[in-house]
Amino acid sequence: MERIPVSDYDILIGSIQSSLNELLNGFNDVKFFILTDENTYTYCLPLIEPLLQHKKYHLCTIPAGEINKSIGSCIKVWSAMTKAQLDRHSVMINLGGGMITDIGGFCASTYKRGITFIQIPTTLLSQVDASIGGKLGIDFEGYKNHIGIFRFPQTVLIDPVFLNTLSDRELKSGYAEVIKHALIADGDDWQNLSQIISLRPQDWTTIIRRSLEVKRKIVIADPYEKNERKLLNFGHTIGHAIESHYMETEHPLLHGEAIAAGMIYETKLSTLHLGLSEQKSSEIITYIKKIYGEPVELELPNLMLTMKQDKKNNNNRISFSLLKDIGISKWDILLSEEELINSFKF
Amino acid sequence: MERIPVSDYDILIGSIQSSLNELLNGFNDVKFFILTDENTYTYCLPLIEPLLQHKKYHLCTIPAGEINKSIGSCIKVWSAMTKAQLDRHSVMINLGGGMITDIGGFCASTYKRGITFIQIPTTLLSQVDASIGGKLGIDFEGYKNHIGIFRFPQTVLIDPVFLNTLSDRELKSGYAEVIKHALIADGDDWQNLSQIISLRPQDWTTIIRRSLEVKRKIVIADPYEKNERKLLNFGHTIGHAIESHYMETEHPLLHGEAIAAGMIYETKLSTLHLGLSEQKSSEIITYIKKIYGEPVELELPNLMLTMKQDKKNNNNRISFSLLKDIGISKWDILLSEEELINSFKF
Repeated sequence: MERIPVSDYDILIGSIQSSLNELLNGFNDVKFFILTDENTYTYCLPLIEPLLQHKKYHLCTIPAGEINKSIGSCIKVWSAMTKAQLDRHSVMINLGGGMITDIGGFCASTYKRGITFIQIPTTLLSQVDASIGGKLGIDFEGYKNHIGIFRFPQTVLIDPVFLNTLSDRELKSGYAEVIKHALIADGDDWQNLSQIISLRPQDWTTIIRRSLEVKRKIVIADPYEKNERKLLNFGHTIGHAIESHYMETEHPLLHGEAIAAGMIYETKLSTLHLGLSEQKSSEIITYIKKIYGEPVELELPNLMLTMKQDKKNNNNRISFSLLKDIGISKWDILLSEEELINSFKF
Repeated sequence: MERIPVSDYDILIGSIQSSLNELLNGFNDVKFFILTDENTYTYCLPLIEPLLQHKKYHLCTIPAGEINKSIGSCIKVWSAMTKAQLDRHSVMINLGGGMITDIGGFCASTYKRGITFIQIPTTLLSQVDASIGGKLGIDFEGYKNHIGIFRFPQTVLIDPVFLNTLSDRELKSGYAEVIKHALIADGDDWQNLSQIISLRPQDWTTIIRRSLEVKRKIVIADPYEKNERKLLNFGHTIGHAIESHYMETEHPLLHGEAIAAGMIYETKLSTLHLGLSEQKSSEIITYIKKIYGEPVELELPNLMLTMKQDKKNNNNRISFSLLKDIGISKWDILLSEEELINSFKF
């Protein structure tokens, strides 16, 4: 088991049995409250439930899927917490992907003005992304993570064993954030990753550790996204808008699929507005297409309203984080609606 | 205008025209979002609206009354904020009693993970209580302030002129917190207050300033209620339960009315469990009854479930803050259900 300190909490990478067991021994005579979705209830809970046998715990399960990262689900969870009579010393354990860790962390942070919570991310996406950084919350009226807060968990437990419970599509979705971390801040890691053609089997412990390191450094330097934390939004300004747009259709995209498309389009913006070389741009886009196929079409008029709601904007100009080179990025590139439309006119 | 620094924000006491004007001049080219209830829309907004004439602002009004301090109201407010396309640089102004400052502060703190907000408390209760301390949130399933967070406003503006918009009943409700502050930490102020028979007219600026000073010192010393901040809960363990119980009836009590009753019962507990003298106890109870009349009957069986949900409890023992003397109090007096019932058996 490896311990990675972040701000005032730790990430433990390794066997969930040993890390969770060690952690639980630190809590005496408190109630635990475990949140899962229907999938993690079936596939992941059996891995941790035996460790809880001599503890007082309550279980709450909500439907899976980003569509349920909603205020309606929050109300259900708060209600279950209330019924369980959790007090301020109780501990919430969120077992699932980003939907569960985001909504569970938000519910824990707002129940009686905040109780302790532990994140056990079970998807690659949440292991390399949602698990670090303290962003919690829900989607609202079609906008991603529109309602939420910053708050850190007590501990994050990461075990690659959970990746065996994922479909190939979900694994690929999470891999988009791994690619992003390399592109914005670790050119050497890009060299390793860009050799990868098949995601199974892989040495996920090594890949996750290295990817987390990029996010860890950035989040410690700028926890509240005033400056360099914005770099993590590479691919996300357009990617989030694509994700929101497709969420309303019969064929919603997974987060990483939308971000992969967003990275392709924002790589193009990087060449136009930040001088990324054509050759590097082509190298990036070719690799992303190799993993994800052709991106969905960029229907800017449909995406504009969402992009205008982006949390990073400043006075109607849309804020991008773009690549100067592979491993080197810059935040706060502000483009007007017109500049953005013109960028994709060719 | 007087400036009282608290943690990392200021309370300005004095004419709202001059304090708000000075504050607004510090914000250039940002959108403002004003939250009122139906009452403050009619009676208080006209006092500040002229100052906003050259600013971009949106207005949102929700129904008045504690019953609307609900997740349903939050959803309406978040929705109006979204429609107004507020960005992270926007500023929310909450104009109203504790219901509005609590819910408005909570919505501001969770919209896009938090935007700046200014509190303009318009009731005596919110001026001496909700305005300091950063507790924000809503009631949930009958439990007071069950969902919420700690977060500080940018500034609090207090002008006693707003007290003219209150009914006598509301003014008296707020006065209960003034009495509480004196009882727990300012015996000299108790000497002044206990001479007051009629609440109008009064030198409210002086009364508010002195009362705020008690809360200010406590909140600075212990912002997250780990220790002495619990003192502020004198009268509230029983008082909140009474308030919750009556909220469901046709004759709901105002917060301060419930707290006045709670203080009477917890003064009795103070004599039994913390050695407050019979003579001081009688002095306190006589004065409170002079202002508020006889307290509602203490129906413990109906209140017990609510008291067990109290945020300060520890493992099924109910936590009280009680008086040792007038102006001297102690927190974390834990009583079991049985001890509590026995205390009121006589």
